[in-house]
Order: sequence, then structure tokens, then C-alpha cells
Amino acid sequence: MTTATRIDWTREHCRLLKGVRDEFATTRPFEGLTIGTGIHIEAKTVALLTTLRAGGAEVVAAGNLNSTQPAAVEALRAEGVTVIGEQTKDEREHGHYQRELLTTRPDLILDNGGDLFARYLDDPYVGLKGGTEETTSGRMRLKPLRDRLRRPILVINDSPIKQFAENQHAVGQSTLESLLRLTNRVTNGERVTVVGYGACGRGVADNFRGAHAKVSVVEVDPVTRLRAHLDGFDTPPRDVALSTADVIITVTGARGVITVKDLPLLKNGVVLANAGHFPVEIDADGLLTSPEVKTIREYEDDLATLELRDGRRVHLVARGHMVNLAGPRALGNSIESMDLGFALQARCLQAVATGQVDSASCVVPVPAEIDAQVANAYLADRYQ
Amino acid sequence: MTTATRIDWTREHCRLLKGVRDEFATTRPFEGLTIGTGIHIEAKTVALLTTLRAGGAEVVAAGNLNSTQPAAVEALRAEGVTVIGEQTKDEREHGHYQRELLTTRPDLILDNGGDLFARYLDDPYVGLKGGTEETTSGRMRLKPLRDRLRRPILVINDSPIKQFAENQHAVGQSTLESLLRLTNRVTNGERVTVVGYGACGRGVADNFRGAHAKVSVVEVDPVTRLRAHLDGFDTPPRDVALSTADVIITVTGARGVITVKDLPLLKNGVVLANAGHFPVEIDADGLLTSPEVKTIREYEDDLATLELRDGRRVHLVARGHMVNLAGPRALGNSIESMDLGFALQARCLQAVATGQVDSASCVVPVPAEIDAQVANAYLADRYQ
Amino acid sequence: MTTATRIDWTREHCRLLKGVRDEFATTRPFEGLTIGTGIHIEAKTVALLTTLRAGGAEVVAAGNLNSTQPAAVEALRAEGVTVIGEQTKDEREHGHYQRELLTTRPDLILDNGGDLFARYLDDPYVGLKGGTEETTSGRMRLKPLRDRLRRPILVINDSPIKQFAENQHAVGQSTLESLLRLTNRVTNGERVTVVGYGACGRGVADNFRGAHAKVSVVEVDPVTRLRAHLDGFDTPPRDVALSTADVIITVTGARGVITVKDLPLLKNGVVLANAGHFPVEIDADGLLTSPEVKTIREYEDDLATLELRDGRRVHLVARGHMVNLAGPRALGNSIESMDLGFALQARCLQAVATGQVDSASCVVPVPAEIDAQVANAYLADRYQ
Amino acid sequence: MTTATRIDWTREHCRLLKGVRDEFATTRPFEGLTIGTGIHIEAKTVALLTTLRAGGAEVVAAGNLNSTQPAAVEALRAEGVTVIGEQTKDEREHGHYQRELLTTRPDLILDNGGDLFARYLDDPYVGLKGGTEETTSGRMRLKPLRDRLRRPILVINDSPIKQFAENQHAVGQSTLESLLRLTNRVTNGERVTVVGYGACGRGVADNFRGAHAKVSVVEVDPVTRLRAHLDGFDTPPRDVALSTADVIITVTGARGVITVKDLPLLKNGVVLANAGHFPVEIDADGLLTSPEVKTIREYEDDLATLELRDGRRVHLVARGHMVNLAGPRALGNSIESMDLGFALQARCLQAVATGQVDSASCVVPVPAEIDAQVANAYLADRYQ
Repeated sequence: MTTATRIDWTREHCRLLKGVRDEFATTRPFEGLTIGTGIHIEAKTVALLTTLRAGGAEVVAAGNLNSTQPAAVEALRAEGVTVIGEQTKDEREHGHYQRELLTTRPDLILDNGGDLFARYLDDPYVGLKGGTEETTSGRMRLKPLRDRLRRPILVINDSPIKQFAENQHAVGQSTLESLLRLTNRVTNGERVTVVGYGACGRGVADNFRGAHAKVSVVEVDPVTRLRAHLDGFDTPPRDVALSTADVIITVTGARGVITVKDLPLLKNGVVLANAGHFPVEIDADGLLTSPEVKTIREYEDDLATLELRDGRRVHLVARGHMVNLAGPRALGNSIESMDLGFALQARCLQAVATGQVDSASCVVPVPAEIDAQVANAYLADRYQ
Repeated sequence: MTTATRIDWTREHCRLLKGVRDEFATTRPFEGLTIGTGIHIEAKTVALLTTLRAGGAEVVAAGNLNSTQPAAVEALRAEGVTVIGEQTKDEREHGHYQRELLTTRPDLILDNGGDLFARYLDDPYVGLKGGTEETTSGRMRLKPLRDRLRRPILVINDSPIKQFAENQHAVGQSTLESLLRLTNRVTNGERVTVVGYGACGRGVADNFRGAHAKVSVVEVDPVTRLRAHLDGFDTPPRDVALSTADVIITVTGARGVITVKDLPLLKNGVVLANAGHFPVEIDADGLLTSPEVKTIREYEDDLATLELRDGRRVHLVARGHMVNLAGPRALGNSIESMDLGFALQARCLQAVATGQVDSASCVVPVPAEIDAQVANAYLADRYQ
Repeated sequence: MTTATRIDWTREHCRLLKGVRDEFATTRPFEGLTIGTGIHIEAKTVALLTTLRAGGAEVVAAGNLNSTQPAAVEALRAEGVTVIGEQTKDEREHGHYQRELLTTRPDLILDNGGDLFARYLDDPYVGLKGGTEETTSGRMRLKPLRDRLRRPILVINDSPIKQFAENQHAVGQSTLESLLRLTNRVTNGERVTVVGYGACGRGVADNFRGAHAKVSVVEVDPVTRLRAHLDGFDTPPRDVALSTADVIITVTGARGVITVKDLPLLKNGVVLANAGHFPVEIDADGLLTSPEVKTIREYEDDLATLELRDGRRVHLVARGHMVNLAGPRALGNSIESMDLGFALQARCLQAVATGQVDSASCVVPVPAEIDAQVANAYLADRYQ
Repeated sequence: MTTATRIDWTREHCRLLKGVRDEFATTRPFEGLTIGTGIHIEAKTVALLTTLRAGGAEVVAAGNLNSTQPAAVEALRAEGVTVIGEQTKDEREHGHYQRELLTTRPDLILDNGGDLFARYLDDPYVGLKGGTEETTSGRMRLKPLRDRLRRPILVINDSPIKQFAENQHAVGQSTLESLLRLTNRVTNGERVTVVGYGACGRGVADNFRGAHAKVSVVEVDPVTRLRAHLDGFDTPPRDVALSTADVIITVTGARGVITVKDLPLLKNGVVLANAGHFPVEIDADGLLTSPEVKTIREYEDDLATLELRDGRRVHLVARGHMVNLAGPRALGNSIESMDLGFALQARCLQAVATGQVDSASCVVPVPAEIDAQVANAYLADRYQ
């Protein structure tokens, strides 16, 4: 009988990365190269960064704002990954870590939000081969800088695999699981309004329908709204959708989706949660400080109940931070969905390191052959 | 008490086209113009072509190969549409109708498969403003000819609305409805293998799952196969999927998907049906003339049972022609799904006629603002 | 190449009855016995009655009111079944056929609605061993007569198999299929109100949800209404459910569910259809003769549009007769679902004929061991 | 800003009990009566027992084996409920608490598993009016004792509401949620085998299908197996279902469903979990001590990985204890589902206390009018 941690469990089930690691241990694609990264440091990341390390890389990680987990840092250091700084909410301090990272002059950058590539341009150095960017917001930030970046930068989030495996299916499911875990409330027969019907919104709506909720969708784009309608979701006008909802989940990518102005609309007992990446979709500060709010009751697990002057109560989950990472036991998206995205990362960095993509591939989606390779690997041992 | 026909019923429920027709009757965007078309002539087309006529157009229709319905011709002529020729399977005869149509020198062409635009290039005339193309195969045929076409040609099938409303949802449902109507067989608990997981295949798989079948997907593209897997469908290797199926439905767009070589694989009692556009996915002729077939039993409604020498029986639906148009009572896709596609047609032709798109828009998708306009119109009266 | 009929197709796929027939041909459980029946005479019945014949029975069939199909009569006579009378809507004439049937003094009765057992009591004869009753309404009629019947009578409809296989799944699906076939209208995103949430109503609601409709349920029993709610269906008050519906389907077993009094409630364009057994749930005559109706338009396939004086239109399917048997091409419930019910019939008659059940089993459900035998037979060859 | 606990949150959302409590505070149905109970003492129970207290009862609670939660005890005592004993796994000690409880000679017993009524018969006292029993196992134990009990005892679990609201929907969902929370593994495309297809099994199978898993069902009763088949689940023979599963969930109510004898069958990487009430369905001790097991790795949150001598790994969740109560953050079934069952409890105790049911109602289901009352209350404020 031995004991092991959640990080061990997670690594054990990153099946694709295990295969890549075994291969990299032989092929050593990053021999002599340094990889710098600003990716979130948590259990799943350990599997990715140690895979890169197995491929011969020096890996230097500065973490991302506020998300660095101490146990993951420890696990990374135990395998020779250099971790700069520690968990911080202070943007200046975080920026300091990033600049420190760039002083190591990484040959490859695994970016998250475009921070490192943007800072690189502030103070360029010789030898940067290129790298990867995890997010859409990073892509939007880096695209105008292509003339200056002039290196292969592959955007993971633009892979169809990322879209359907993680954004749709995994976010949809982890949002449902988290709301159940945090609130312990019934979903059957409840009216759930999902604001936003992109890949994430589709997944959220689908998972709540699978949980026997009556799901409405609010979507500003008429073509996407028609899609939601034909997918069988109710698509009433925004104010109707908000005022009839037992649960409202924002997943738009936009700011100020639910604000204090909406308080008069809300049904007594409504639960507000955000599944979008940034904690700006529900204006939690505005709600919590509104003069319409008489008292606030803070429950365990980051649940709060706002009692309004007119007697209505509004429940706010995780103060509008991502619901699927809220509470002390949040594990986020499924291991396998992250394993898929991180296998794309590993293969894309390999392609850049070994010159399979050139500078024409600056801020472009994952090459189709890497998507195919990863998809094949995922399905490979299922039908033997 | 008055009596009315299926065509009346259909026109009555083309709600979007009714709205467009009322508008066009006032705005007359096609005043003085001739529109030539090679679209299939059946109940739903009547609603489209009479809408164009209401907009002031002379409409000349030559039909498409083998699909012209006499009742629809009669209804069109009653409203002043010129119909050239009649139902024919003879390609030469059909080509003759098309050439005759082009002698009227239409100002706008509503094409289906690229026939009319291609023939126009054989013998160009002054005054062609441009037009629309209904299909993907037409787009693939016309794209290489852009340098010579040099006119706005909008491709309807490339609209996202066409993809999700018609290709996915409507084809998926009409395939299920048709198989039920033709075979009267249970779907619950049956193993249904869908070959192809494009928009149509996704719809077919989804509808049979909704009917409590156990659905497997065969798909050659690994990324699309992974998508089917994560959508919850079994994705075994092709031969396993074929040999365990109670029902096999092809919807790939490719030729020779199921051929006589597959006979040894098939399970006793399997039903073979094709939902792809062309009757080439299941090699019906090859199967029916195979020496492995001992006897063929022809049932009503275009069902055939092939009894093999080893005793197994294989049921073939509609000799591999589109199952959702098979049998004497087939109505095809829902009225509303076609109304959406035809509203796109009407609006695109309007845009070409009135100069809202220029020659840069040669063989391009439907403009986003037309998609939005049609989507808004569809949803407009739902929440009043 | 041989040709064959719909009846051949149906018999070919009554897999359970084929197995029973093969067994009966050897065991001859009905040798020397006469079986009289009032069951509907259509394609599937042929498979049942010829199975009984193969077991040695003389079979005498009088049909049921208005449902006798000439092709089925012909097929039965070709195999030595005596058919009395022909299709009639005249109850007196039909009663005459039934009395004529009883003059043959059948040893076993396969009843439908309790007619034959009730008439037997009017004029009892020596030698009746007992039999079966197909329906719930027959059970309710015969139960008070148990003291006089004093023979084994097994009620097929009370089998759990009948409930889930036919009433729920098969009726649910054939209702959806029929509505699609008859109206060719979209279901995606439409509001469908199902009135009644018994086994049939659950199946109808489930199938329309599978077809991406937004389904509401109206149910007078609060516990059943709660069940619908937790199953994820909207359960608004009746008048709200009727006034917001695009489609209303009655499946309650009750009379006058939708009457002329509801006309003011109905939404413009609503489709009314009945999936309950008797054409009394929607008061079609009342609607068609209402002074609020300005004109009636009769379309092909038994569709009618009532235009009201205020301009609203109401579409009525099959004048309130069972929608899944409406129109010229209706095939009703799936072959396999009927095969299950008819296998129960054959096994129950065998049990009565061979004395496996005694007079204590008078108007009781199918014995559990027969349910188990039939269930095992259905699944037997699925996993070999 | 005030702070509050999980118990507060739970009580706040027991909407039905709140209504009952308000009513009881006026009507005082238990004035002068003592209620003794052996129900589990956790957050939701607090809402029930304080409701009874509000109705005028002295409440004495002895808890159930091993489930007593200290925070709940504290909350109960704060409201004047007498709690005997504390959390214990020792059956003798627990028995001692129960006997101590009975020395208070409760007028009403709210039993769980039949312990208190059975012990009452060992040493009867004057004044017991009757009471309620929560479980099916309690009903089976008490039914043979009816001649001696001769008092109204209403069995909550036999209410249809309990069956569909809690056993099917709530257990199904909490099992899915718990497995996601504990393992963080993907469900999409995974093969999940559910052993047992009663109400709980149906719910588990349905929820995993909603989570895009490929679900197989193992069921020994052929009629129930046929039901699973027609519901669209794969129903292969047990050994096939076990050997192809990525996840196996037992929910049968039987002992020894998965034992060490099954080890040779299991697929590498399989996850074993139990959703049945007792930790006897998976023989965890047998598995953990099998000589075929080379090493055992214990992870956080009660996950264990057994590495077999042949290299296969088997993951065991919560050592076969109920998965939906496993791990440090388990909240079990949804608040609303428990609120429904506890409202039935409160109403049934009220009926016994006020003489609405007599001794003929000894070990019988909840009266239909109480089911109706509770269902109406649940739906009452949803459509105002």
C-alpha cells in the first residue's frame, strides 16, 4: 500500500502526454533548448511541463495571475522545472516574474494570453524560434503584431479539437458538475438561462438539458440565436430570459453581461454563476455594493445570498469567478480534455523546435496534421 | 369547405417567403429582369419562384434531372412562370432544356450544380448580372471559373444557416422519418451505423440516438471521428461498424461507400439506406447483380430484400437513392428548413439585382447581413 | 426477382411470432380447438392469426369496427382462417358479425374491447376455456363480470412489456413519425403541448423532445405532473399550455379534452392532433361546425385548416382520429413492438389452451413467466 | 455581511419543509407528543426534525450507523432536539443508543431500516401511535411483523414521488456528479456499465447517457433487461458488459455483484464504483486482499488503484461505499429531492398523529392524498 496525490492521479491519466513523453525521452526534440511558459501552474500542467522536460528542454515557468498551486510548483521543481515566483494577485509582481523569465532568453515560448510574446517585443533577443499561444484572447492580441513577431506561433485554441473537446464538452460538463457540487440544488425542471451560445455556451446548454433542466439561451448574434432555437432551446428576448430564470449562467467572453441594472428583473431565488474565462461577465462588485441590497449572507464554498430591500433573494456563486474552478474542491475540466489540449501543445512545440513550421505560420491555428495525429492517438487503443 | 393541395399546404407554411413576397410586391426588385433557374421543380420551389415573380421577375425554369413534378409545373405556369421541358432522366434532353433556357438571356441565374453558369461560359451574352448557386458541388465546379465569370455569385450552401438548419437538422430528421415510414421497423435498441459525420451525418446520428438506437459512426477523418466519439457515439473501425449494424446509413458525399465487397461483412437482416445526395454511395447495381445473391424480393415502396447464397438477407432501401425522398409519399426536408434556404436565395438574388454585391463576390458565401436578416425574420414573431 | 407485399414484409419481420409458429407447428397446442377473435384485421394481425393456425387452431375472425383491411382478409383466407364480414362502420352490422362468430362456439376467445366475452354471457355455451383480452378498456368492462365469466382471461395490456414497448416507445415514435409525414412541418424549436402523461404521453413527450421541440405537458394528476416536471418538461397550467402551443397532442383516454370552448385560447397556426385510442379527445365535429369558424380548407392526407372569424387559423389532423393511423400511408406502431404484444397473445392463449392457468386467473395480467419468456426471446439472438 | 453554514444553506432551500413548518407552528399537530427517530443526522435531516419540533413535538434522535455529522447534531441541539450518542461504527454501541431512545417511550417513530420498530417489539410499551419507515429494506423487515405491530406505519420509499424524484433522478445525478468530482475523468465516449436497472439504475444510466457516455446495462430480470434495451442501452451478457467497461457502477441492492472472481474479466484502467445503499455490492475487501493484486496505491479522496500482477490496473472508488456520499465534499442527493421525501415524512407523521390513518395502514405506502398534497406544494409557486 502506497499513498499518492491528486497530481499523481492526474498525471497517471494524461494518457496522451504519457505516450508523448515516452517518445520524447528517446527523440529528445528539445535537447539544448529552453522553453519559457506563462501557463497556469496546476496539476494538469505538471503533466505537460514534465513531458517537455523529458524531451530535453530546460523549462522555466512563471505561472499566470493568481492561479499558481503550491503542490504543483513542488512537483515541478522535483522534476527539474524552474518555477519563478509564487501565487500572486498583484499584476505588477506577476509582470516582474514574466520579465525575470525572459532574462533566461527561452528558445521557445508557450504563452497564455500573449503576455510573454508581447513582452519579448519590448526587449527582443536573438534566438527565439517561436512557440505556441493557448488562448483566443492571446491570438487577438498577437495577430496585429505578426509583422514584428515573424516566427512560427501556433494557436492551440483555434484547433477544432480544442473547440469541441474542451470548450464545448469539458467546460459544459464541469460547469454543471461544479454548480451541483457547490449548491446541491436540483436541476430537473428548473429554468436555466445560458447567456452566450459559442462553443462553451453550447456545451453548458447541452449539459443542463441532459440534467433535465429547461434551458433558455440568450445570444446577440441572430444566426447563432437561430441555431440555439433549432437545437431546441428557448430563445426569448434577454429580459424575459433573465426574469424567468432559476439559474443564470454567463459564458459570453464579454464584460458586464449581468449588472446592478438587472436587479429589478431577477426572479426571487435566482442563482447567478459565470462560466466565462474572466470574472467580468457578472458585475459582482456592483451587485454586492448596490443600495438595493439589504443584507449579504456568505455561505461556505464561496456562495453568497443577497437579500434585496424588496425581499427577493439573489444567490451569487464564486463572486462571478469561473464556476468550474470555484470552491475548495474544484478540479476544473476533465483530465482527458486537458490531455488533448496539452498533447496539441507538446506536438506544436516539437514542430516549431524541429523546423516543421516556418515563419509564415505566425499566429495561425494548429496544423491539420498535428490535429490528426493527436486525434488518432486518443482513439488508438479503444478498439483493439 | 374548400379543397386544396399539398402544394397549397406547403406554400401556406413558407412563412419567410410569404413575408418576402409581400415586400417584393411593393419594392419590385426584379422589375424588368429575367431570372433563369435549374432548381428542382417541386412543391417548395413553387413558393420560391412565385416569390421572385412577385418581385417583378420573368422567371424561366428548366428543372433539374429527373426531379420535375407535374403538379408543381402546373402551379408555376398558373402564376406566369415559364417552364421549359418536362421530367426527364435523359441527360441530353435535359441539356437541351438548359440551352433553351439560356436563349432567353436571363439577367440573373439561380443555379443548382453549376450547370447554367458553366453553359453560359460556353456561349456568353451581354447583360448577365450574376446570381446564386445552391450547392457545394456547384461551388466546387464554379470556383476555378471565377476569372471568367467575374460577376457576383453567392453560394447558398455555404451559409451557416443552411448547414445547421437544413443539412444537419432537417436531413437528419427526414432520414429518420423516411426510414420509419418505409420499413415500419423498430429503432429502439437497434445498432445503427452512420457512415460520414459531416453536418448531415451529425444530424442523422443525432436523430437516431433520439429514437433510442445505439449509433456508431464511421468517419475517415480522425479529427471528425474524435468529435463523434466525444459526442457519445461509438466509432469502431469500419469493418466492425458494418458487421455489427442492424441498419447502415451512408451520408458521405463519396462514391462506393458500400459495395459488393462488403457483402461478406454484413449481418443477417441488415437494412442499407443512403442519405447522401447522389445514389452512388451504396453500389446498388453491384449488389443486385452479385453472384452471391440467390434471389431478390421486391416489396412495395421500393424496398428490396437480397437473399444471399449463405442464407443471410440484406434489405436495400430505394436502391440507394436518397432515403428521405424515397417512396410514393416522401415529402423530404421540413417546409420550414427549405423556407429558410429559399429566403436566403430570394435575398441573395435581390442583393445581386440591386447591386448590393459586386463582382468581387464571385462564388462566395451568403453575405453575413443576409444571414442575419433571414435569421431575425425566422425568430421575429416567436416572442410577441 | 420476385415481388411481395407490405403484408409479406410485415410477417417477415415478426421475428418472435415466426419462432412461436415454428414451435407450434410441432407442438400443436390448439389441435382440435377453435379460436374466435375480434381483433383488428391488418398486416400485423395476419402474422398472429396464422401463427395460431399453425398451432392447430381453427381461427374465426370477425374484425373490429371500421378497421378491416381487404388485403389482410385475403392473406388470412389464403391460409385457412375464416373471416366473417367485411370492413364496416355500422355498429349493428359489426354486432351481427360478432354474433355469427359466436355461433361457431369457439373454445378460446382473443378479445379486443371485451365485446366477445360480453356477448358470450348473453348466450353462454358449453366448452369455452377462456382466452385473452387486448385492451385496458376491455379489462375495465370485463372485471365486474368475473363472477359470471369464471374462466382464465389474461389481459395483454397489463403486461409491463406492452406498457413500455408499445404504449410508451412505439406510440410515441409513430405519433412523431406520422405528424412529420402528414404535415412536413419542422419540430425543432416548436412548442409542443402533450395532454396526458401516462405511458403513451411519456413516449410522445420524449419523442418530440428527441426531435428538438420544446415540450410542455398538461396532466391533471399532481403526482404525474410532478413526474413530468422532474423529467424536464414544462408543466404550466392547462390554459397557458394550450395558448402557447404550436402543436397540441392529446393522449389522455378521456373525452372532450379540446373542444370548441378552447378556440379563443388557441394560437394562430396551431396544429391539433390526437394520439389517444378513440377519436373523442378532440371534439372535431364541434370545432368544424363552430360559428367562430369562417371557412374550412381540406388538404390532401386528411389535414384541414379552420380559418376563424378573427383571422386565426387552426390546423386539424385526421379530424381527431389517431394520428399514427392517419393518412393513406400510415403503418402505425413498429412491427417489432406489435410482434412483442402478439407473442404475448400467442403464449397466453397457449397457456389457457393447455391448462397452465386456471379460472382464478380471470381478467388478470399476463403471468410473469410469459413476460419473461417473451422478453428472453426478443433479446436472445442479439448477443451471439 | 453575515456568515452562514452549509446547514443554513440547506435549510434555506428546503422550500416544502419551510411551508410545512410555518403551518405546523400554528396547527401544532404534535403538541404533547414525542417522536423518536433513527434517521441519518446530516444537514437535510436538520430541516426535517426542526419542522417536527415546530409542530410541537419533543424529538429524540439516535442517528444511524456511522452517518451522524457533528455540525448537524449541534444545529439540532440548538433548536431543542435531543440527540442521543454520537457518530459510531460500532453496532453494539449504536444499538445501545437506540435502546436508550426507546426508554423515552416515543408516541411516534420515524424509522430507518426498521430498527426502532423491531426493538419496540422486544419491549413494547403503552402509547405508541405508529409512525413511518423510510426505506424498502425496513418495509421488508417490518411486513412480516404486521400482526404484532398493529399500528399505522407508512412506508415513504413506496411513494411514487420517492421513486422518481429521489431514487431515479436524484441518485442518478448525484452518482454522476460524484464520479466527476472524485475522478475528474472524462465521460464522453467512455463505456459505462450500470449493473441493475431499477429506479436508481435507470437514473444512473440516463445521467451518464446525458453525459455522452456509451452506457450498457446488466440486469438479471429479462423484462427489465428488455426495458433497458428499448430505452436504447446496450444489454450484453454480464461478462461482456464487465470486460468492455471503462467504468462499472453497481446499483442492484444485492451482495457480491463484483467480486475477486471478476478480476480476470476487467479491462485495464477500469473504474469501479457502487451507487447502491450498502457497501456490499463490490467486494472491496476481497479485491484489496486478492493475491492477484501486486500493489495498491491510495490517492486522496478515497480513490485506490490496484495494480494486478499481469500489469492491469483497477481503480476503486470509496472502497465500494456509496459513491454519491464519498469524499470530503460529498453532499449527496439534491436538497429539493430530499425536501420532497421529508415533506412526505412530515405529512405522514401528521396523519398518524392526528388519526387520519388507522391500524389497517400498517406497513403500507404513503396515502395517495399525501402524495398529491406534496406534489401540488412542489409545483405551486412555479407558474404564478
